[in-house]
Amino acid sequence: MAFHKIINDPVYGFITIDDELVFSIIAHPYYQRLRRIQQMAMAHLVYPGAVHTRLHHSLGAYHLMTIALQELTRKGIEITEQEQHAAKIAILLHDVGHGPYSHALEQVLAEGVHHEKISLLIIQALNNKFEGKLQIALEIFNGSYHKKFLHQLVSGQLDVDRMDYLTRDSFFSGVIEGYVAYDRILKMITVKDGELMVEEKGIYSIEKFLIARRLMYRQVYLHKTVLSAEQMLQRIIKRAKYISAQCQQPLNSFINEPMQNITLDQFCSIDDTDVLMAIKSWCSHSDKILSMLCRGIIDRELLKVKYSSFPVDLETVQVRKEIAASILGLTMQEAEWLVFTGEASSTTYNFEEQKIKILFKNGEVKDISEVDDALINESLRGNIKKYYICYPGF
Amino acid sequence: MAFHKIINDPVYGFITIDDELVFSIIAHPYYQRLRRIQQMAMAHLVYPGAVHTRLHHSLGAYHLMTIALQELTRKGIEITEQEQHAAKIAILLHDVGHGPYSHALEQVLAEGVHHEKISLLIIQALNNKFEGKLQIALEIFNGSYHKKFLHQLVSGQLDVDRMDYLTRDSFFSGVIEGYVAYDRILKMITVKDGELMVEEKGIYSIEKFLIARRLMYRQVYLHKTVLSAEQMLQRIIKRAKYISAQCQQPLNSFINEPMQNITLDQFCSIDDTDVLMAIKSWCSHSDKILSMLCRGIIDRELLKVKYSSFPVDLETVQVRKEIAASILGLTMQEAEWLVFTGEASSTTYNFEEQKIKILFKNGEVKDISEVDDALINESLRGNIKKYYICYPGF
Amino acid sequence: MAFHKIINDPVYGFITIDDELVFSIIAHPYYQRLRRIQQMAMAHLVYPGAVHTRLHHSLGAYHLMTIALQELTRKGIEITEQEQHAAKIAILLHDVGHGPYSHALEQVLAEGVHHEKISLLIIQALNNKFEGKLQIALEIFNGSYHKKFLHQLVSGQLDVDRMDYLTRDSFFSGVIEGYVAYDRILKMITVKDGELMVEEKGIYSIEKFLIARRLMYRQVYLHKTVLSAEQMLQRIIKRAKYISAQCQQPLNSFINEPMQNITLDQFCSIDDTDVLMAIKSWCSHSDKILSMLCRGIIDRELLKVKYSSFPVDLETVQVRKEIAASILGLTMQEAEWLVFTGEASSTTYNFEEQKIKILFKNGEVKDISEVDDALINESLRGNIKKYYICYPGF
Amino acid sequence: MAFHKIINDPVYGFITIDDELVFSIIAHPYYQRLRRIQQMAMAHLVYPGAVHTRLHHSLGAYHLMTIALQELTRKGIEITEQEQHAAKIAILLHDVGHGPYSHALEQVLAEGVHHEKISLLIIQALNNKFEGKLQIALEIFNGSYHKKFLHQLVSGQLDVDRMDYLTRDSFFSGVIEGYVAYDRILKMITVKDGELMVEEKGIYSIEKFLIARRLMYRQVYLHKTVLSAEQMLQRIIKRAKYISAQCQQPLNSFINEPMQNITLDQFCSIDDTDVLMAIKSWCSHSDKILSMLCRGIIDRELLKVKYSSFPVDLETVQVRKEIAASILGLTMQEAEWLVFTGEASSTTYNFEEQKIKILFKNGEVKDISEVDDALINESLRGNIKKYYICYPGF
Repeated sequence: MAFHKIINDPVYGFITIDDELVFSIIAHPYYQRLRRIQQMAMAHLVYPGAVHTRLHHSLGAYHLMTIALQELTRKGIEITEQEQHAAKIAILLHDVGHGPYSHALEQVLAEGVHHEKISLLIIQALNNKFEGKLQIALEIFNGSYHKKFLHQLVSGQLDVDRMDYLTRDSFFSGVIEGYVAYDRILKMITVKDGELMVEEKGIYSIEKFLIARRLMYRQVYLHKTVLSAEQMLQRIIKRAKYISAQCQQPLNSFINEPMQNITLDQFCSIDDTDVLMAIKSWCSHSDKILSMLCRGIIDRELLKVKYSSFPVDLETVQVRKEIAASILGLTMQEAEWLVFTGEASSTTYNFEEQKIKILFKNGEVKDISEVDDALINESLRGNIKKYYICYPGF
Repeated sequence: MAFHKIINDPVYGFITIDDELVFSIIAHPYYQRLRRIQQMAMAHLVYPGAVHTRLHHSLGAYHLMTIALQELTRKGIEITEQEQHAAKIAILLHDVGHGPYSHALEQVLAEGVHHEKISLLIIQALNNKFEGKLQIALEIFNGSYHKKFLHQLVSGQLDVDRMDYLTRDSFFSGVIEGYVAYDRILKMITVKDGELMVEEKGIYSIEKFLIARRLMYRQVYLHKTVLSAEQMLQRIIKRAKYISAQCQQPLNSFINEPMQNITLDQFCSIDDTDVLMAIKSWCSHSDKILSMLCRGIIDRELLKVKYSSFPVDLETVQVRKEIAASILGLTMQEAEWLVFTGEASSTTYNFEEQKIKILFKNGEVKDISEVDDALINESLRGNIKKYYICYPGF
Repeated sequence: MAFHKIINDPVYGFITIDDELVFSIIAHPYYQRLRRIQQMAMAHLVYPGAVHTRLHHSLGAYHLMTIALQELTRKGIEITEQEQHAAKIAILLHDVGHGPYSHALEQVLAEGVHHEKISLLIIQALNNKFEGKLQIALEIFNGSYHKKFLHQLVSGQLDVDRMDYLTRDSFFSGVIEGYVAYDRILKMITVKDGELMVEEKGIYSIEKFLIARRLMYRQVYLHKTVLSAEQMLQRIIKRAKYISAQCQQPLNSFINEPMQNITLDQFCSIDDTDVLMAIKSWCSHSDKILSMLCRGIIDRELLKVKYSSFPVDLETVQVRKEIAASILGLTMQEAEWLVFTGEASSTTYNFEEQKIKILFKNGEVKDISEVDDALINESLRGNIKKYYICYPGF
Repeated sequence: MAFHKIINDPVYGFITIDDELVFSIIAHPYYQRLRRIQQMAMAHLVYPGAVHTRLHHSLGAYHLMTIALQELTRKGIEITEQEQHAAKIAILLHDVGHGPYSHALEQVLAEGVHHEKISLLIIQALNNKFEGKLQIALEIFNGSYHKKFLHQLVSGQLDVDRMDYLTRDSFFSGVIEGYVAYDRILKMITVKDGELMVEEKGIYSIEKFLIARRLMYRQVYLHKTVLSAEQMLQRIIKRAKYISAQCQQPLNSFINEPMQNITLDQFCSIDDTDVLMAIKSWCSHSDKILSMLCRGIIDRELLKVKYSSFPVDLETVQVRKEIAASILGLTMQEAEWLVFTGEASSTTYNFEEQKIKILFKNGEVKDISEVDDALINESLRGNIKKYYICYPGF
């Protein structure tokens, strides 16, 4: 009897691991570390259930990959056992390169280094450790494998990554309108000319998928309280770096060195815990700005956010800064750490990005944006873009 | 228009907060801290979804209390608005005294101090802060209020605490067989002679509730991997205390002082993060035992557990110790930190405990264990008790 | 203790009836008859779970009305107990005038008589029976009551009727993408200037509601197999009437008399059973067209349907008729009963209809179509309109 | 690309039909007829959602069979494609021999003929029609096939029939405590020595399955209102037969002939519709008993039921009869049709029946009743048995 492990998952019921190498990868400290990185960073400050981890999401995406491969095989698409195996490992590890609080801190902790690049380094390291057994997974992950659709399942407009995170984030946050009919979509995918496509009858499901994604952005990912907390988180790290530079003594090990210079082992020893613990300890730091921001995260006393359709005018910003400076006893320069503006945006269906191709019964292939249907054609492709101002609410 | 906040909850859909004082209590740092204490400690090592927090559980119990009070009022039980208010605050704060990893570490971090005692201290402190507005809540919580059933809703055989944690733990772990029909039970409760009872037609629902509880103990709370991780967690703290005592220098602030001696503010500044961060840093500690245990938790390389119906014989323990000592290069005394036995148990329906009273249509009151029904009468009241041995698996 | 009945409902968990008059109305034969009228007519031929009844839907709408009234009252809108009572009765009875297979047969069984008119007659009859106690309910139902929003809850763009049928039809058909967040929407409604409105923060929920409705139309209500079966059903009745007229002897009692001429008691004695039984017996009728259509419904051998964006050209229709006539041995005139074209349509958000008003925080009121948001503004209001041809598939 | 049809199911999401013969069987009128036989007869009078059909249940059981076969194959049990195919057809057709209102009328409409016998006849007929392609399915169904476990999956203590009907009946009635973790159980089944068994770790799931079954019996299948309606239904048929015999003229075609004498085509032309239509028409029959019983079913004015642990004493019965006779103006003999006693029972785990075998890790096989576990061992195997009296409630 073959290797077989079952993991309970409230979203899919069960996730089955039926391969010993996959199990060994999951057991590796680099992967186990994902237990200590929350999938949705600060979203739990608004949606208390949204505390699920990157590990859980990766396992979920792995589960959907299994279903997708079964379905394509059933439809006669040729995928060898070795390739199936590899595609499952590629998705399992797609997020392994995320740092603490993933997207929320990516730009400030590891400036200029995208998490996918680190994922690739880790997959390479594991490939060495497991004597080349991850070679095809590596190629699928970086897009060099000749069967392009396998990479598209890992990373593309309709990849199982997205399908799982939308489903899972909707589930744990309790925003059920964000529900994605992943099972239906996975029954509709196919491959033509080496590319992943959706059968004609799946158009409405895709439309629904795009709508759900849009709804999740507006209601959850760009929720103003979440935005505020994540902006504060970024400013905490920036302020700590600034102070470290001033006093020529790093506040914390993960502040002192550019991520680029550290070893993989060092990188993989850092997770949400380190950042959160640092924030807790900085609550009583002598630097007023730093301690205020940290206290704010720990006690959930967040900066106010106002969204608008137009850039915030400079006058308003100036007034907010003056008020903050005056009430909190800060210089105008210091006030800039607490009063600031920005742009939040998301693209539901982006023309620049890789497209969602629809395979019609007559063999024709069209991008979904060209399908003659009012809803899809005119509005879903629009980017959600909002301007905001953050400031202390007194 | 009255005060009104809605919180999304994947379990109940929405939790409504319609009271400004309740909202202020939730916003207090003592309460916000519960965001950083996981409800199920180490259970997520087996059930990856089980990462929900004490804060989420408390909000859920608050929601069920609201329903329970509505139902009792509808049935003509007199409960003033003030009492309703107080009962809701009492349940909101029932777990506020939990320390890091709650039950799993309660005995080693705060020896001899039950978390309910600390909850009481915190409620008193908040009562002072909010100028006596929590007085009735305090009395309901400590059981001194004259309407006994209000205390029973907070803490009793059928309290909303249990109803929420069973429901929520089952939901997040994905063990759906542990589902409790809380909505049905809450429709069946009533009060007679000042005590909380269940109407006759609710017998089957209570039976189902007891069965679900039993199933959750066997399948989740006493799962052997969970037991192993929580035993290791306890041993980490004990070992750290032991080393601190040896070197006369505390390893960490929460180790150095008996919990009894610290202020509430100090107590409330400690949560899972502190313990987890300490464990991470001790992974490279010079003390071999400490670093092995810490590495085990961080990398999920746990001690093996064997359950049995009888106490483990000394011979077996001795052999396991010798193997561990020999392979890991430890003294026999050191090996005792990694090879040990114990008893795990739970009581589904305990005669010593407060009883579940059934109110029959004819006005008669019976304890459920006296109801003439084979299933309830003969088996559910049994305690689950298992003996175990933990040891390193090579 | 007050009157109290609980009904299990897979959709909402429980429906509570806490009023004796409501219970008496439910117990009345006119209402019980709704058990024998399916909510979705022939949709179960595609979605086997969609066999729920008008009675179940009415009870569900009643449940949502209860929630809506609670919510409005909580927000300070004045609604007397008597009015609440009346609004609940009005929605309970809103569909009581439906005939067999409701919408599917409405136009052919009771030509020119809308079911709402019959509902009104029945409410009047019950009002007499219950000694005037349904007077306000009657006024709310027919729109003459001065608090307009109560009528809007029964029948309007955001009434609880729609909210229940979308939710329930989605649930029983298993098309979960049609899920409507009824609980969220009901938390967002309010009243201003006597009219039902939605609070600003409810915009996305409304948008989602419109999308779900649109999806249900496209995927379920206008599904081509459902359309085919319902067209066949209509043609069966028309053919039976035609034959009855020819032979001057009605095929069945519900064929012989215009619905307008019968008494309420007669009307209420007819339900899906009568029509289905007639169809079963006509399977062996000597009229070839009638028996073919009946056999088709009973054995689920349905006419083929092709949808198109343009009216079907006459040439195509002519060819289909010739094929049918030739293969089935029919005259060209007879073939018209089996080969025919038509238009299927639905309006998601219709400007002609009553509008969905949004109440902004600043007190401003806008129709949702005027809200500055790409998706709503440009596409959702579009009517779904398709042309079709039905013909026997050989 | 292979044959492939997807059916939406609210219970399992999707049911996949990937075989053309299976599809042809489903399309056959004998099978389509199951659309017109409700799974739960009169239970919808208490649980309005419980209107699902035998067809839906059969499709569901087919779905579970597919999962079970996949799982066993994965575990290395040898099952050829042909056998898998056959097992799926056998379960698809297991209930095809049910008559109108299935169990509720089985004893009175087709006295002495069990529905499984008719199912067998129909499978034989279809086997002829489909040129012997159902031969193995036939053997699996009647238990003559050499791989006994295939028959046990169709009909045994743990068959997929039960698993589906418990799951589905619980789902549609809204009695969620009756939920069966079918997916978990199906992961635990295995085969040893040609027999279906459950792996050791599945014990708790089996226990839960037995408890759910017991709960469904007590709360749903033997609910007193359901019992009353089904007893009335039986008496309606008996009374109609009695009158037919008296007047030497059958009231209705399905009354006049013993089911044994009719052809399969005749049998398959009768369903719930015929019985319900007859009941509707007999509401105004000149026989008082018959019309009273029929009116009762149609208007849901049911006989009262009292359950007791002991047989009802004759005195009580006599008094009830006298009251009924006096108030309704009946002879004492006539009153017997409305006042009667009986026994309702069910066995959760019956020693006489085929057993549930547990396969322990060490290779040992035990019946679950021998497993050393208090709950299973002492109470679940008990039969639920209740005595009742029915009488008109004035």
